[in-house]
Amino acid sequence: MQIIDGGITAALGFSANGIASGIKKRKKDLAVVYSQQSCSFAGSFTTNLVKAAPVLWDQKLVASSPAVQAIVVNSGNANACTAEQGNKDAQSMADSVAKALGLQDTQVLVCSTGVIGVPLPMETVSKGIATCAKGLGDTRESGALAAEAIMTTDTFPKEVAVSVEIEGKQVTIGGMAKGSGMIHPNMATMLSFITTDAVIEKAELQKLLGSSIIDSYNMISVDGDTSTNDTVLVLANGMSGTKTLSPSHPEWEKFVQSFLYVHTELAKAIVRDGEGAGKFLEVTVKGAKDKQTAQKLARSVISSNLVKTAFFGSDANWGRILCAMGYSGASFDTGAVDLFFSSAKGTIQVVSKGVPVAFDESIAKGILLEKEVSTLAVLQDGDGEGTAWGCDLSYEYVRINGDYRS
Amino acid sequence: MQIIDGGITAALGFSANGIASGIKKRKKDLAVVYSQQSCSFAGSFTTNLVKAAPVLWDQKLVASSPAVQAIVVNSGNANACTAEQGNKDAQSMADSVAKALGLQDTQVLVCSTGVIGVPLPMETVSKGIATCAKGLGDTRESGALAAEAIMTTDTFPKEVAVSVEIEGKQVTIGGMAKGSGMIHPNMATMLSFITTDAVIEKAELQKLLGSSIIDSYNMISVDGDTSTNDTVLVLANGMSGTKTLSPSHPEWEKFVQSFLYVHTELAKAIVRDGEGAGKFLEVTVKGAKDKQTAQKLARSVISSNLVKTAFFGSDANWGRILCAMGYSGASFDTGAVDLFFSSAKGTIQVVSKGVPVAFDESIAKGILLEKEVSTLAVLQDGDGEGTAWGCDLSYEYVRINGDYRS
Repeated sequence: MQIIDGGITAALGFSANGIASGIKKRKKDLAVVYSQQSCSFAGSFTTNLVKAAPVLWDQKLVASSPAVQAIVVNSGNANACTAEQGNKDAQSMADSVAKALGLQDTQVLVCSTGVIGVPLPMETVSKGIATCAKGLGDTRESGALAAEAIMTTDTFPKEVAVSVEIEGKQVTIGGMAKGSGMIHPNMATMLSFITTDAVIEKAELQKLLGSSIIDSYNMISVDGDTSTNDTVLVLANGMSGTKTLSPSHPEWEKFVQSFLYVHTELAKAIVRDGEGAGKFLEVTVKGAKDKQTAQKLARSVISSNLVKTAFFGSDANWGRILCAMGYSGASFDTGAVDLFFSSAKGTIQVVSKGVPVAFDESIAKGILLEKEVSTLAVLQDGDGEGTAWGCDLSYEYVRINGDYRS
Repeated sequence: MQIIDGGITAALGFSANGIASGIKKRKKDLAVVYSQQSCSFAGSFTTNLVKAAPVLWDQKLVASSPAVQAIVVNSGNANACTAEQGNKDAQSMADSVAKALGLQDTQVLVCSTGVIGVPLPMETVSKGIATCAKGLGDTRESGALAAEAIMTTDTFPKEVAVSVEIEGKQVTIGGMAKGSGMIHPNMATMLSFITTDAVIEKAELQKLLGSSIIDSYNMISVDGDTSTNDTVLVLANGMSGTKTLSPSHPEWEKFVQSFLYVHTELAKAIVRDGEGAGKFLEVTVKGAKDKQTAQKLARSVISSNLVKTAFFGSDANWGRILCAMGYSGASFDTGAVDLFFSSAKGTIQVVSKGVPVAFDESIAKGILLEKEVSTLAVLQDGDGEGTAWGCDLSYEYVRINGDYRS
């Protein structure tokens, strides 16, 4: 696998564009992604009972449409809690794209992100879609425009692309995502889009997406809130020309790892850009009785407000970490925990067999003052291992969310 | 039921004291509560797998000791994650109290709250217990000293007392509690102590405590973290001289309501004093399919960081409330929700049948700027009703918890 410069247009046959249509006051707010050829596709969506209209649209397509060829995304308005009008508007967005690109509406996936409960300005959106579709391009820059257009409170666009050799041919997987508040295990407000020229059937792609999500988006947390709009979409147009990829293909595992890498990097980029985040935190649990237990423990730690504020203060408050493990609901031998903090400045052990180790506070502070800090908890219950990613909880988080609507 | 001025010494036969023993630098940090007569008692404890040593001690007593006569509480040090030494120290605290008051160690309940992972300074604690026990008094003031001594980051002591007439006699229930971080459903870091002169058997009292907790402490949230030390203890010395209270007693319900009132008021006082809290929030859900569903929905809303920061900013961000209801895991008809905000400044409806109602933002702001704000969600699924209490999430919360240890 090779990491390459690129995003949503990296794979063969995909073009994109992003424009400022006028949903937001000034910034880019509308993106279209298009494939030359019809695509196998897969989707994964918010578990929130309150689902935005475009989520319902996409779920219908995943269930009943054999193939798609485009995605339209607007930012600035979530088209959520908008009742029947919301459904009509999502349908109408698909119609506009279909019309502009000569497709059926059932070949167009729709996503929205932004403020909840306000009807979309459909005249602006429809005009925007026509303009955006006209400017589609397959360059690196076109992909970047799309990545910028899907941002809300994000401070930087999130793109990643890799290339993997299969049957001697290059298979490319690229993607873009947006965060950055409401990010929590079980896929809270985030949109992530992956395009690939891999040859893979719809059912297989859906299965692969399901298992990839468990180790990527479901292992990140910004603030514990699960949104109404979370969506991950994958389009595979088959243009790499290999044989069909499936578990019986000799190079399947290579593809799976590359696919997971793209999702994991996008997930990590989302928490790196968590609202008000000053630090990127990684929590790894090893030696748990199984992988599920390790992931549950790691997630509980990364989701704790008290742990997050301690990291904000660069405070080696290991007690809060043990505490968050304790209330995770997962079982483990509390008297066998070893705990370590590390960063570019080094590693320090703070707990041994469940009790504190005397450590030099100034060394600990030095390690924790870094922008990227890892926590490792080693248990003695088995071979289970899991990693979660998150960010600290800062004044800035409170400021941003204290008055988001204005 | 009459609300009376008082706390832990309000009921007949209870005395208390609180002193600065030297565990903390200057402030009061040690309290003893004592009953003239032997007491029925009940306890409820943290569900965290990591339990502090005194929690283990008290759980043992609840399981095996027929009656107790005293409680000792220190603040400034949680005696948690202190391994075998912690267990010895908890035992030693019980011993010191027993010696000072002429009791058996199995008649002494022990609680600790404060920093995790640091061994108790036992010489200081033992001396303190002797001094504290000598100064026991049954006055209003003695109760207040104890309430002050159990505080950690609390900004005010929490006391409540009521008197209820049963068989023409006064039965008194009084209590004290401390918060104020790590407060979350399922009893996160809080200590609550109730004394009563009611005549009630141990098993009945334990049952009553169990049901009272569901509607009081389990319905509050400050930050979502569940601590290692949460404890609620109730002592009943029977000195009111009524017949034994039980469900077959004609005035049982009266007692139950008074008992619940005391727990609920202490729980509400804890969130009023939540770390960095500027606003007291009440969330009521009506019309849910049952009480459990209503409580689950209310708790999900009160626990949401995004809801809490919106209230901090006095922002009528109803979308976040619907969203938090949606990811609660409880089922409800999302298209039938009516939502209202109210405070001393009036009431405003913001959602009708799941979609936003046009409302005057300046009126909404006026309502939300108040220090006590209520949210009411009315569903159409049944008769279930539940209320949760919490506080906003402020800059101050981040400041306090960013460097708690220093």
